[in-house]
Amino acid sequence: MDPEVLEKLVVRNDSKIVFFIFDGLGGLAMPGKGGTELQVARKPNLDRLARDSICGLLDPIHPGISPGSGPAHFALFGYDPIRCNIGRGVLSAAGVEFDLTDRDLAARANFCTLDGKGNISDRRAGRIPTEEAGRLCEKVKKSVRVPAGCELFLMPEKEYRAVFVLRADGLSEAIADTDPQRTGAPPLDPEPTAPEGKQTAARLKKILDQVRVILSDEPRANMMLLRGFAKYRRYPSLEERFGLRSLAIANYPMYRGIARLLGMDLHPVTPDVPSQVEALERRFGEYDFFFLHVKYADSRGEDGDFDGKVRVFEEVDPLIDRVRALKPDVLVVTGDHSTPSLLKSHSWHPVPVMLHAASARVDRVETFDELSCLSGGLGRQPAVNLMGLALAHAGRLVKFGA
Amino acid sequence: MDPEVLEKLVVRNDSKIVFFIFDGLGGLAMPGKGGTELQVARKPNLDRLARDSICGLLDPIHPGISPGSGPAHFALFGYDPIRCNIGRGVLSAAGVEFDLTDRDLAARANFCTLDGKGNISDRRAGRIPTEEAGRLCEKVKKSVRVPAGCELFLMPEKEYRAVFVLRADGLSEAIADTDPQRTGAPPLDPEPTAPEGKQTAARLKKILDQVRVILSDEPRANMMLLRGFAKYRRYPSLEERFGLRSLAIANYPMYRGIARLLGMDLHPVTPDVPSQVEALERRFGEYDFFFLHVKYADSRGEDGDFDGKVRVFEEVDPLIDRVRALKPDVLVVTGDHSTPSLLKSHSWHPVPVMLHAASARVDRVETFDELSCLSGGLGRQPAVNLMGLALAHAGRLVKFGA
Repeated sequence: MDPEVLEKLVVRNDSKIVFFIFDGLGGLAMPGKGGTELQVARKPNLDRLARDSICGLLDPIHPGISPGSGPAHFALFGYDPIRCNIGRGVLSAAGVEFDLTDRDLAARANFCTLDGKGNISDRRAGRIPTEEAGRLCEKVKKSVRVPAGCELFLMPEKEYRAVFVLRADGLSEAIADTDPQRTGAPPLDPEPTAPEGKQTAARLKKILDQVRVILSDEPRANMMLLRGFAKYRRYPSLEERFGLRSLAIANYPMYRGIARLLGMDLHPVTPDVPSQVEALERRFGEYDFFFLHVKYADSRGEDGDFDGKVRVFEEVDPLIDRVRALKPDVLVVTGDHSTPSLLKSHSWHPVPVMLHAASARVDRVETFDELSCLSGGLGRQPAVNLMGLALAHAGRLVKFGA
Repeated sequence: MDPEVLEKLVVRNDSKIVFFIFDGLGGLAMPGKGGTELQVARKPNLDRLARDSICGLLDPIHPGISPGSGPAHFALFGYDPIRCNIGRGVLSAAGVEFDLTDRDLAARANFCTLDGKGNISDRRAGRIPTEEAGRLCEKVKKSVRVPAGCELFLMPEKEYRAVFVLRADGLSEAIADTDPQRTGAPPLDPEPTAPEGKQTAARLKKILDQVRVILSDEPRANMMLLRGFAKYRRYPSLEERFGLRSLAIANYPMYRGIARLLGMDLHPVTPDVPSQVEALERRFGEYDFFFLHVKYADSRGEDGDFDGKVRVFEEVDPLIDRVRALKPDVLVVTGDHSTPSLLKSHSWHPVPVMLHAASARVDRVETFDELSCLSGGLGRQPAVNLMGLALAHAGRLVKFGA
């Protein structure tokens, strides 16, 4: 459906919508474990919420497509994940709360180690600490002479990761990664992937050639690899599209970045999930829409740590009743994508979802997991439908047509 | 799917298709009632039909979107409800069986009461009877001097409602409602919502200024409010698209209007549902496709009258066997949208559907209601798919491709 159809129906009211998002929620049965991570976890509060909700399964992008975190979250917030797809560079820049302009080209930078022959010996430069990356960013910025008309921004992100932003007229994002994604090979030159990238590639090469010289006396981080070149584009905010004043309670840079790109306010980083729920309680009066992001289900899944992922659900479960106690008009619990411990990676499997609201047509689902949700009333839907459903259940959409 | 794909497969035969439509069929569980209206109703014939049918749920427009009756019915008949969406004015004009031309701009008119200061004191003019509205329409038509090149038609609809049609070259539907939708405010001037509406707005204002003078001596209905301005557009008929000679057995003006816009013949208005079924029996030999429309489920839902909506199902239930006795090749029972008594309004919830045909892959659904249909063989589908399924089960579609 054309997103404008939905936007034209939006009205404002005093309702509250909470999206409680477990990153990488969905899983797969692991041999010997007796089911999926969600099936094995003891999670009485989540299951009770499932009994009081309408349940189903969401396809983040499309059956068979494993999403990155960017498009998976765009879909959850009602943004077409394919048309709105954006490079890693912009997500990283937004994640460090850098104010991008439409003249900006952003890339994710990794500090790396080159051996005596100029080949990469460590793509992560021995996982140098964030402070050291900060020092290196300053060192490069102080000495580099950027091409005329250009401005360079370089900011540490976490450990060996940094954000590289070039600001100039006429920049193009048609640039291949300089990271060969393996050791034993030299960094690649920034090559245009289309004719319009030629001038930009030349400008980047001038900068990267200097970076190699400037960092040559460093013992570990003596070079920088760039990937995910992306031009900034402005997205209409959740407030502009749906009339939702929104708060993100998320602790990881990329998710904060996505929220920021969509015009959400960012709650300061908190130490753990209980303090995220506290933040939700404290600021519940201030906003219409709350995005609470729990990272660890995905992290444990990526590590192949089935029991660890089970523990994430068990530890977060008691907090669910504190969220319910706030009596949001619409409470959605779901994930951005599946990260089965069995696969140790993001996957294409659809993600369990439950929606709790007074107007929900509660189904017969008794437990919150991948198989039970199969018989839920939401059926199986693209994740991009979720925001429209949440708005409808919050009374924020008028009728279509006479 | 591009509708032309379907249309190119259509063949004619002697089969009969019946769409038995409960307006506002779907509901929600009401606290204390033990389920939804359909779950609570005693309806042995509908349930027996469900056991002999393939069942499922239809989304009228899209998950989360509450439809007006116009788009909801367009979808049932296989017309894209978004692309075919049409303003209230045209639906109202078609409902009073006015022959629209493509020079016509139609609006829904309400007679209203203005107080001494010119503010609206009653948006429905004390619900004057239809006959009085008819007299007022004549009074206006007799005295008004329409701008050069224009022709004005004014017809009573029901009670204080009337249909306003302006016929002229170059009219635009980019005109805002003159109904401020509240009392204590004056009627609005007809304002253009886009530059192309400017001339039309000026012509409408000339007419409405006179209407105010002409009606000024009326005790109750001393002004008229206009809304839902819509230019007529011609739709290809059910016969042109699907080869179906069609009869509508519907008693309410708007549904008769929709049927008429899609080229159906209209059976004269009948007093009740049993007489609608009698009409179906009597004229079963004459057509390929029958649209039988039961209004009252929606009306009781809009009133919040749960028990009343239950009674509609219980009263109509015995008639189902008379419809089955006609042995239509395809019998579909469904609704245009949900109207849960709990919400007292049209809603976005999907609508139960059952399709009975010799070629139906009968599923295990035992009762006809919102939760049972979740496990039906039709799954959850957009309502616009229904006509193609009916044609297939009627043997009216040939194979696609070699």
